Amino acid sequence: MRRVESIAEMRELARGWRAQKTWIGFVPTMGALHAGHLSLVRQAKRDGGVAVVSIFVNPLQFGPNEDFTRYPRDFAGDAARLEEAGADVLFTTTPEEMYPKSFQTHVVPGLLAEPLCGASRPGHFRGVTTVVAKLFHFVAPHQAYFGQKDFQQARVLQQMVDDLGFDLVLRILPTVREADGLALSSRNHYLTAVERAAAPALHGALQAVREAFDRGERATARLAAAGRERLARSGAFRLDYLEVRDDATLALPERLADGGVAAAAAFLGKTRLIDNVLLGDAARRLG
Amino acid sequence: MRRVESIAEMRELARGWRAQKTWIGFVPTMGALHAGHLSLVRQAKRDGGVAVVSIFVNPLQFGPNEDFTRYPRDFAGDAARLEEAGADVLFTTTPEEMYPKSFQTHVVPGLLAEPLCGASRPGHFRGVTTVVAKLFHFVAPHQAYFGQKDFQQARVLQQMVDDLGFDLVLRILPTVREADGLALSSRNHYLTAVERAAAPALHGALQAVREAFDRGERATARLAAAGRERLARSGAFRLDYLEVRDDATLALPERLADGGVAAAAAFLGKTRLIDNVLLGDAARRLG
Repeated sequence: MRRVESIAEMRELARGWRAQKTWIGFVPTMGALHAGHLSLVRQAKRDGGVAVVSIFVNPLQFGPNEDFTRYPRDFAGDAARLEEAGADVLFTTTPEEMYPKSFQTHVVPGLLAEPLCGASRPGHFRGVTTVVAKLFHFVAPHQAYFGQKDFQQARVLQQMVDDLGFDLVLRILPTVREADGLALSSRNHYLTAVERAAAPALHGALQAVREAFDRGERATARLAAAGRERLARSGAFRLDYLEVRDDATLALPERLADGGVAAAAAFLGKTRLIDNVLLGDAARRLG
Repeated sequence: MRRVESIAEMRELARGWRAQKTWIGFVPTMGALHAGHLSLVRQAKRDGGVAVVSIFVNPLQFGPNEDFTRYPRDFAGDAARLEEAGADVLFTTTPEEMYPKSFQTHVVPGLLAEPLCGASRPGHFRGVTTVVAKLFHFVAPHQAYFGQKDFQQARVLQQMVDDLGFDLVLRILPTVREADGLALSSRNHYLTAVERAAAPALHGALQAVREAFDRGERATARLAAAGRERLARSGAFRLDYLEVRDDATLALPERLADGGVAAAAAFLGKTRLIDNVLLGDAARRLG
C-alpha cells in the first residue's frame, strides 16, 4: 500500500491512472477504521482497479462544541487494517493544506441537509459536502463508497453528485453491526463499559419501528412514537431525534407509502450515536 | 463545428477526449457573443486541442428584478461567429436540464463575492460559481477562459478553482474595447444611440483613476473620488459603485502598494454597465 501525504502527489497519481484508463475506487474516511469502513474498501477492490482510502478528520464538519480534537485517531492501526483489506493507496493531508487561510468557497447542500442531523449539527453537512467535493477532485474516482450508517450524509452526497454533475458513481453499502445490533462507529470507542452494554437499545428502537411498519402501520408520527417509546424504556439514552421520513427526499409525510427510513440520534453520556433502518421497499431503492 | 445539446452528450464527448489525451480548452458564455468572447475562443484554439464554447443564459445568476428574460439571445449569429473563430464544439442545454426540480446544492463563494457587484446583486456570484462548477464537470477542460471585463467574477472563479481543487487552469484575458474605450458587453445591445454616445465615460472615469495612480496617488478614497468626479461630470450615468481595491483580495485598504483595481458599475437608463482597469503592477499579476 502506497502512502500519499500531499494533495499534489495524490493529483499526480490520479492523473496517471486516468491516463492509463485505470479504474479508481475511493473510500473517504475520518480514520479510526472499523469493519464498516473495511467492507467499503473490500467492495472497492472487488469492483476492480485501484482502491484509494483517504483519512482526514475534517474540522469543517465539526461544530465548535463537538469532538473534533478528541475524535479517535489511530493512524498506525488504520494503516495496518487497510493493508490487510487490500487498499492500494492511503491518502492523508493536513487541515492547513486542505483549508489554507484564503479558503472561502463552500459546497452548500439544500433541503436534504436540513432535518435530522442537519438540525442538530448546524454547518455539519456543508463541511461534509465541501470536503468530499475537494477529495473527489483530488482522487478523480470512478466510484466512491459510503456506509448506510450515515444515511443522511449519503443522501446529501448523492444529491451533490447529481446537482453539480460529478462524473462518478456513489455506492452506499449496508451498515455493519456488532452481534448485539450496535452499528459500528468510530465513536463507539468513547463508550464506557456500562454505556456499551446499553448501546444496542438504539438499534432496538429502530427495529421496533420496522416491526410496526411490517405490521401495517404507515402513519409516520405513530411509527416514530413506537421507536421513541422503545428507546425511553431502555432508560439509558438522552434522545436527540428519532424520526420516520421519506427515504428519498427526507421529507416528513403524514403517511409512508411502500417504504421510508427510521433514523435516530441519541446521547449515551457525552457520546452521540446515530443509526437508521430502512423500511419496506426503501432497501431496494438504496442501490 | 459540432453542436451538442445535452449534458449526457457533452460528458460522453469529454470522456472520449480525455481517454485519447486530447487537450480541452473551454469558454463558458451566455451567448450574444462579441469580439471579447471570440478573443477567448481564438486563444483556446491557439493553446491547442479542442475548443468548447458553451452558451447558457444562466437563470441562477440573475436577480428577480434583473434582465434574465430580455437578455440578448442570437443563437444563429453566435453559431456563425463561433464557426468562424474556430470553435470545435458549441454546447447548449436548457434551464430544465441544468436545474431539475430536485436541484438544491450550490457552490457558494466567500469574501471575494461580497463587495462591488456582489453587494449590488445578491446571489449573483453564487449563481456563477454553481453553474461554472457544473460546466467544468461536464466539459472536463484542462484550461478555461474568462474576460477581465468581469474582473470580480474571474477572481471569484479562480478562488473556487483553488478552494475546491478543480484540476484545471483558469486564464483571464484582457478586456476588448470599442475604439472609444467602451468595454464590449452583450448588454451594450440595450443602449439607445444617445446612451451609446455617453457610454465611454465609464471607462474614462476609470482611466482618471489610473492617471491619479500613475501620478503617485495611493489613497484608495482619493483614487475612487477622482473616478467618481470624472463620471459625475459626464452627467449621463447613475452610479452603482466606483471603488478602488486590492486586486487579489478585493479588500479595501486605506492605501494601495504597487497596484490595485479600479472597478465600477453604473446605469445608463435601465442598462447597467460594468468596467474595470488594473493599476500599477496588478496587470502583471493577472497572469
